Amino acid sequence: MFDPDGPVLGIDPGLSTCGYGAVERHGRQLRAVACGVLRTSPDAPLPERLATLEADLDAFLHEVRPAALAVERILFQANVRTAISVGQASGLALAVAARAGVPVTHYSPNEVKLAVAGDGAAAKVQVQHMVQRLLSLSSAPPPDAADALALAVCHLWRAPLRDGVARAVAAAQARR
Amino acid sequence: MFDPDGPVLGIDPGLSTCGYGAVERHGRQLRAVACGVLRTSPDAPLPERLATLEADLDAFLHEVRPAALAVERILFQANVRTAISVGQASGLALAVAARAGVPVTHYSPNEVKLAVAGDGAAAKVQVQHMVQRLLSLSSAPPPDAADALALAVCHLWRAPLRDGVARAVAAAQARR
Repeated sequence: MFDPDGPVLGIDPGLSTCGYGAVERHGRQLRAVACGVLRTSPDAPLPERLATLEADLDAFLHEVRPAALAVERILFQANVRTAISVGQASGLALAVAARAGVPVTHYSPNEVKLAVAGDGAAAKVQVQHMVQRLLSLSSAPPPDAADALALAVCHLWRAPLRDGVARAVAAAQARR
Repeated sequence: MFDPDGPVLGIDPGLSTCGYGAVERHGRQLRAVACGVLRTSPDAPLPERLATLEADLDAFLHEVRPAALAVERILFQANVRTAISVGQASGLALAVAARAGVPVTHYSPNEVKLAVAGDGAAAKVQVQHMVQRLLSLSSAPPPDAADALALAVCHLWRAPLRDGVARAVAAAQARR
């Protein structure tokens, strides 16, 4: 693990705009450590854009030193062209995380919306508002950054629950 | 450019099996320098598989020192799930190439089949046989390796033509 006490880093992968958001928990309080959007120029050749994105993600990971990465699951993208492009961006994010020893968990857009807005079909603007409220931000973050922050919040809320269930199951199996 | 006198490296991107094939030209003779398949275990976590594939591609590129990379274009994959997976693998190959300063050209499967088998709809086994003949191999390479070799052959035949056309166009414009 990269830094077990580090924040959770959410990544909303994309080639033109890749959202990121790092969130820490202090007791019941959540705090945004960083958020924003990595961009690559549509005018640059694809290989250069991908190399730039990978270098930016790598530098960012070493700066933030996250305990975990929460990445949007992309199995149900609407069309093949988008799927390829998002696949290329997400593949780089996952490879960078593995190299840095940071564990990765995937969440579907529905899981994330359900976690932060209580509604798996929440609109983008609802997610932005809920992220702003949950993290006490002075203004709503831009959509891709808000999605990334929502992924991090989703992981902070769900991972302890999942770990608890896994421990309970393991304990029950050990008693058999 | 990595090594202007190096071979052309074809890559048929994939996560479970990624075909590669390096071809040199000596006058009108083509020679296979290397070919094979990089594999990652379906049992390993996705981030680890992607990091392994990227490290393998990177090591291979530094060993082969290609003058150019020819990569299969994946815009028209049959289904979204495959498109994401191939997108992830191809994204890594393109980023590795950009980091190494190796120029990348994309070719569609049809262009490659047309170039090596004279038929844009040639079957896999036809491509394997034609690659075996063109490169004077003692046996037909496995399908993914054959596709990669075919990409390299396609580039060796088409790139000089394309460069010639570009030079002629530039010369015509300069005369205006």
